[in-house]
Amino acid sequence: MEVVQVLHMNGGVGETSYAKNSLLQQKVITMTKPITEDAITKLYCSKYPDEIAIADLGCSSGPNTFFLVSELLKVVDSVRQKIGQKSPEYQVFLNDLPGNDFNTIFRSLSDFQNKLRKQLGPGNGPCFFTGVPGSFYGRLFRKNSLHFVHSSYSLHWLSQVPQGLESNKRNIYMASTSPPDVLKAYYVQFQKNFSLFLKCRSEELVDGGRMVLTLIGRRSDDPSSKECCYFWELLAIALGDMLVKGLIEEEKLNSFNIPMYTPSPAEVKYEVVKEGSFNIDRLEVTEVNWNAYQDEPDLSDAFKDGGYNVAKCIRAVAEPLLASHFGEGILDEVFRRYREIISDRVSKEKNEFVNVTVSLIKA
Amino acid sequence: MEVVQVLHMNGGVGETSYAKNSLLQQKVITMTKPITEDAITKLYCSKYPDEIAIADLGCSSGPNTFFLVSELLKVVDSVRQKIGQKSPEYQVFLNDLPGNDFNTIFRSLSDFQNKLRKQLGPGNGPCFFTGVPGSFYGRLFRKNSLHFVHSSYSLHWLSQVPQGLESNKRNIYMASTSPPDVLKAYYVQFQKNFSLFLKCRSEELVDGGRMVLTLIGRRSDDPSSKECCYFWELLAIALGDMLVKGLIEEEKLNSFNIPMYTPSPAEVKYEVVKEGSFNIDRLEVTEVNWNAYQDEPDLSDAFKDGGYNVAKCIRAVAEPLLASHFGEGILDEVFRRYREIISDRVSKEKNEFVNVTVSLIKA
Repeated sequence: MEVVQVLHMNGGVGETSYAKNSLLQQKVITMTKPITEDAITKLYCSKYPDEIAIADLGCSSGPNTFFLVSELLKVVDSVRQKIGQKSPEYQVFLNDLPGNDFNTIFRSLSDFQNKLRKQLGPGNGPCFFTGVPGSFYGRLFRKNSLHFVHSSYSLHWLSQVPQGLESNKRNIYMASTSPPDVLKAYYVQFQKNFSLFLKCRSEELVDGGRMVLTLIGRRSDDPSSKECCYFWELLAIALGDMLVKGLIEEEKLNSFNIPMYTPSPAEVKYEVVKEGSFNIDRLEVTEVNWNAYQDEPDLSDAFKDGGYNVAKCIRAVAEPLLASHFGEGILDEVFRRYREIISDRVSKEKNEFVNVTVSLIKA
Repeated sequence: MEVVQVLHMNGGVGETSYAKNSLLQQKVITMTKPITEDAITKLYCSKYPDEIAIADLGCSSGPNTFFLVSELLKVVDSVRQKIGQKSPEYQVFLNDLPGNDFNTIFRSLSDFQNKLRKQLGPGNGPCFFTGVPGSFYGRLFRKNSLHFVHSSYSLHWLSQVPQGLESNKRNIYMASTSPPDVLKAYYVQFQKNFSLFLKCRSEELVDGGRMVLTLIGRRSDDPSSKECCYFWELLAIALGDMLVKGLIEEEKLNSFNIPMYTPSPAEVKYEVVKEGSFNIDRLEVTEVNWNAYQDEPDLSDAFKDGGYNVAKCIRAVAEPLLASHFGEGILDEVFRRYREIISDRVSKEKNEFVNVTVSLIKA
């Protein structure tokens, strides 16, 4: 199996986990719930299995780590009660990179399990939790050992910065001014990663097993479309300003690129069909406002600052990348500028992340 | 299932993990290796399975966490190469209480896996690691999901201090001056815990699955025998001295007892037979010197101090118990006194831990 240099940010510690545990991420899980609910119900009703092994890939550490699991278990438990079936036993595998804070997850597990027992009906089966450290761009589980795989807001992270981005200069991601070879290098890396992901999971899932994946993506066929690249373009502006002021070096900026790819539904579909192990049950696109707090009632003033909210969310994922490339010294300044730019845009236009969700069945 | 108040010290963080990662523990694993090796070889050769799921219960965090696993995998790999079998895939479950430092295990996993790949022959199967937080005095895994269970130096810890020890006064464990009802209360708690352990594991192991357990125990039929109680009696002396000096309160000392039980081979056998899920393949007793460094050549002077070595080892396990009962303030003083007492005894007599190892097959 290909050895990949793992840079993808599925989870992480401290600030990094903010994005995965933000209101934004919770909204995404809630928004895609009809698809997840549909998939786990179909899985359960196809065989009424005695046990269901669920893997959450890129689980991070924090409230959202358990949010998804409890949603899934509530669905199964409600269905099995309606039809008078005995509860299955559950095995939940929580996966993230080895740097994720598994200790925190494990130490809050007992509280979560007590809460879950109360939420589920009487006679609900035991639920066994395990932590699985490692990159999902490689095998993580035994053959035919999983029934249901879930991943939200992790798979747009590539295993490494694509090679051959020298001509991307002051851009830090795909942008309208990126040369075609840059767009191609990004796409090739996505294809490599996503097809490897599908291959590994197909070995680990039982026949008829299901998988629901949500990535940040785009509707447009153009990979440099504003709908998926804008929040990085604004960060590139902040970095460009700092270059002009002599606060960062040109060579450093030219060699900095974000290891991410925001695919279109068509690109996702193409890889699934090409890899061949899965049938597509559903493929849907949703949007969520950059500022997850936008429509929340009764917020304290601190949360009403859209620029702050969005900048904090992007900082959570970008900070480790920026810190390792430019050094920690620039962080506060770059995010101060970024927040200003974002605040200005947020007040003038509505900006949304586009989410691509695909529900797959192992053929 | 009975809800147990989990006090047992299988692993833990910081100082607690010292005992599990000491030379002592490594010597115990090495000493019991013929039994473990025999069990995993028989397991493998009975069916040549495609996959082997191994659980290490009370894995702690540190070098010894991986030591056992690598020993087991080397045995299987050597056998399968000799007979020209394709390597199985391995699934390793590392279990300890939720307070264990799983982050450290997970972050050193990659180095360990690289080393292991080099040690094993070409064509060795993948090995998937997961962390499983929770008490082994309860179900931890799915039904019929394990092939091999190992536990070393964990199962002598009880899930709680036995009830009804009021008359044990200045003793802190079973001692020659303990009244019969104290000895009985300890034994009843051991029986409850050990039979629950067997029941849970029997549900989780496949038929023909194997289990090798090593506990600190005793040869004698007398549960207050010096061979198993002496190191706690010496700690009781240190605490008694501190009571005389007014450094701790009488009521506090009278209510302090160690939640441990050091069974005889006959007691282990009795529980296994009574529970009924397992057949005994081997039941053996070994000894290991209190001072694991005793016979080691080329040691720096620091390690030659037997009192220091033994006191450090006991401190590792006793510190959290003492701290939560008496407060942290007494720790340095109690262990200074304990070290003095131990140094004196170590120089005058040979003292050994008695290990009881049982190798079981699921009937």
